[in-house]
Amino acid sequence: MKTFTHYLWFETETRKALVNITDELSDLVKQAEITDGFCLVSAMHITAAIWVNDEESGLKKDLMTWLEELAPAKPDYLHHQTGEDNADAHLKRTVLHHQAMLPITKGKLDLGPWEQVFYAEFDGKRRKRVVVKMLGV
Amino acid sequence: MKTFTHYLWFETETRKALVNITDELSDLVKQAEITDGFCLVSAMHITAAIWVNDEESGLKKDLMTWLEELAPAKPDYLHHQTGEDNADAHLKRTVLHHQAMLPITKGKLDLGPWEQVFYAEFDGKRRKRVVVKMLGV
Amino acid sequence: MKTFTHYLWFETETRKALVNITDELSDLVKQAEITDGFCLVSAMHITAAIWVNDEESGLKKDLMTWLEELAPAKPDYLHHQTGEDNADAHLKRTVLHHQAMLPITKGKLDLGPWEQVFYAEFDGKRRKRVVVKMLGV
Repeated sequence: MKTFTHYLWFETETRKALVNITDELSDLVKQAEITDGFCLVSAMHITAAIWVNDEESGLKKDLMTWLEELAPAKPDYLHHQTGEDNADAHLKRTVLHHQAMLPITKGKLDLGPWEQVFYAEFDGKRRKRVVVKMLGV
Repeated sequence: MKTFTHYLWFETETRKALVNITDELSDLVKQAEITDGFCLVSAMHITAAIWVNDEESGLKKDLMTWLEELAPAKPDYLHHQTGEDNADAHLKRTVLHHQAMLPITKGKLDLGPWEQVFYAEFDGKRRKRVVVKMLGV
Repeated sequence: MKTFTHYLWFETETRKALVNITDELSDLVKQAEITDGFCLVSAMHITAAIWVNDEESGLKKDLMTWLEELAPAKPDYLHHQTGEDNADAHLKRTVLHHQAMLPITKGKLDLGPWEQVFYAEFDGKRRKRVVVKMLGV
């Protein structure tokens, strides 16, 4: 059995961002030389998430608008009594889920025709990490 | 170590549907002859999801009603400027999450007493795929 | 390859609760003697979830307030025609997702600096189970 671990670093220029990391992950699968297995992609900071969906600019804006309605940035969260201002980002991470497990088949990410993998940032402008861990043969 | 990969196909008669796939998955675990491991079930189309919950008709309707309130079908998504009409389906997939990892113990799906696995379709009437991948001993 | 399976039991004193299980999981990883692999943590009862986020009392209350707005406890769910009163708990589990996959690296849970793992209960005061399954080397 083979294992492979790698950390991706992000520092987005905006507070909120969607970064397509599909190609970077595909390269890591090649490096790992795993033919058949699992690739976990998990945001290690609790105001970021992983989203597997469409590379379409309108939809990406729709997602962000919808998340802002669902879990708005606003001053009156209890979390902000600690001096933080990012409670909404914790909730947005929760809606998207912070991780995805990508299947690897025949040495490649086994994604659907439109599936793209995004790092979703909700409290950016600082260095943050994603763990990529694979297990397989 | 053993691996097993299978694709399930769906073409629902309605735009939205919940299809219970627990028995089908149990059969695949038997075929895979894996005693102890993981079974990933992941919707490969970005307007479908996997839901692990209750086989109860009232609750299934409650879920669909609630999702319609949370992420309503409506004309004014930016995604629809591409000619698509299914932005709500992308968001509904996001709420449910597109995948689940089922544990396999003693050669069977290790689910709780009421856990059932559903393929959740939000833009049906077309052929779509789910990847089932297992890893274990 | 090694596998390890364990069940955690919960019986919360309140209907809704967040129980930090990070230390318990860390101990299980030691017991499993797995150096590199995956640790699945999955709530087996369909009104409970797993949440990976911040051990901060304000944020935990914010989460519960927000979930109550998003999926309120109220009498008029169809599910309640069965005699149940917990449809909201099924929906809250759905928002948080019922499981998380924790990476294991160098014999330890490979979590981010603030990531803590919580058992999230939405219909407590009864005995419920979480399955913990690890796979690795």
